[in-house]
Amino acid sequence: MVAYSSGNHAQAVAYAAAAFGTDAHIVMPRETPQVKVAATRDYGAKVVLCGPGEREQVAAELLERTGGVLIPPFDHPDVIAGQGTIGLEISDDLPDVENVLIPVSGGGLASGVGTAIKATRPKVRIIGVEPELAADTTDGLQRGRRVDWSIEDRNRTIADGLRSQPSALTFAHLQRVIDRMITVSETEIRAAVKELAVNAHLVSEPSGAVALAAYRQGATPPGATVMILSGGNVEPSALADILIG
Amino acid sequence: MVAYSSGNHAQAVAYAAAAFGTDAHIVMPRETPQVKVAATRDYGAKVVLCGPGEREQVAAELLERTGGVLIPPFDHPDVIAGQGTIGLEISDDLPDVENVLIPVSGGGLASGVGTAIKATRPKVRIIGVEPELAADTTDGLQRGRRVDWSIEDRNRTIADGLRSQPSALTFAHLQRVIDRMITVSETEIRAAVKELAVNAHLVSEPSGAVALAAYRQGATPPGATVMILSGGNVEPSALADILIG
Repeated sequence: MVAYSSGNHAQAVAYAAAAFGTDAHIVMPRETPQVKVAATRDYGAKVVLCGPGEREQVAAELLERTGGVLIPPFDHPDVIAGQGTIGLEISDDLPDVENVLIPVSGGGLASGVGTAIKATRPKVRIIGVEPELAADTTDGLQRGRRVDWSIEDRNRTIADGLRSQPSALTFAHLQRVIDRMITVSETEIRAAVKELAVNAHLVSEPSGAVALAAYRQGATPPGATVMILSGGNVEPSALADILIG
Repeated sequence: MVAYSSGNHAQAVAYAAAAFGTDAHIVMPRETPQVKVAATRDYGAKVVLCGPGEREQVAAELLERTGGVLIPPFDHPDVIAGQGTIGLEISDDLPDVENVLIPVSGGGLASGVGTAIKATRPKVRIIGVEPELAADTTDGLQRGRRVDWSIEDRNRTIADGLRSQPSALTFAHLQRVIDRMITVSETEIRAAVKELAVNAHLVSEPSGAVALAAYRQGATPPGATVMILSGGNVEPSALADILIG
């Protein structure tokens, strides 16, 4: 198996490859936090680091060399459907849910969860959340078409898991299921990470905490609200910096 | 209601008092981490700080002044029975459990959980855990009688929630239900807090992490093992210090 991802998808593919007794090669940007590289290697995968914007190309070369199959991080119906199971769980576990806040990067998570929720509970509001510094989807949904923010721009946010952009497939899903987008500042993201650690006793990475950051802006309509915390892979030193900041 | 506790019991009594529409006065040692004082006040309780070893006396004065009722942190059959519900949950949720590791301080948690587990699954090993620097119960169980470690000695451990000693009532329970005790060093406690944060994405206070510290010594018999993480109230600066240490 070959994948490009630095986050949960990387670890999931590594885990699946080990479970099926096959190899996994995972392509990650060079600036990926060490904790994410280590967690992926711990599942037995080979990690290949690459420069900005090179990951599709490096993955293609690996596919040719290994004869493996590409497991894309979001741009595939099966991957979106897999993410959708989170939406089904929310529908089952919290029948009176009214708002679901979801981090948006490549859009696979929001596409899958949003589609599953709208199919089971059509009145629930699906709220996508992006960092202000990587708000390409917010921008694109306003314009009615995908827009391309430079990787240099997107790399400015501390939320290193939210620097991807939707594909045509996920953008089409997002256009159908997203009721509104909220963008959050770097300060708000850091405050959410700290609040989760101190009050909920949960370790979230910056990307994973943006839904709480958005909720804390106070603009979410009333009603039972679910925030998806989509990742907890944070460097100990980075978490420490946020805790004392 | 009046209670002396700096940990979960303080917050539980504060919560219960608010739920019943009555006042709560909670006596805490002056060196209690600020995060625990704040969490208790946030539930609406009045916090009264006191010097080392003064808490029973200060609580008695508050009882006289307020005409309230004392809710002891561990030295009461009802409190022990309440803690026992954790043991019933473990028995229900994990029928093949073989070891349960429990932090020991005043002994209420270990008495309740141990009694419930032994009543439902008599073969399960109950393993109590203490910091080396506050190992009065380990010492006492070896000698067959309660021993008194000075509060100055017990205050040396970073695990501020494990500085109490059993009462006659809890010690009698512990003598019946504890199969063995494990003591852990300060270094092991800090490593366990860090491992929980980085790998399990859970924020535990030092007192709450001692069961993992004990498990990591490798002496727990094989089989499904439950570690009770008994608290997550840790100063952000203290957690940061452990993360970068």
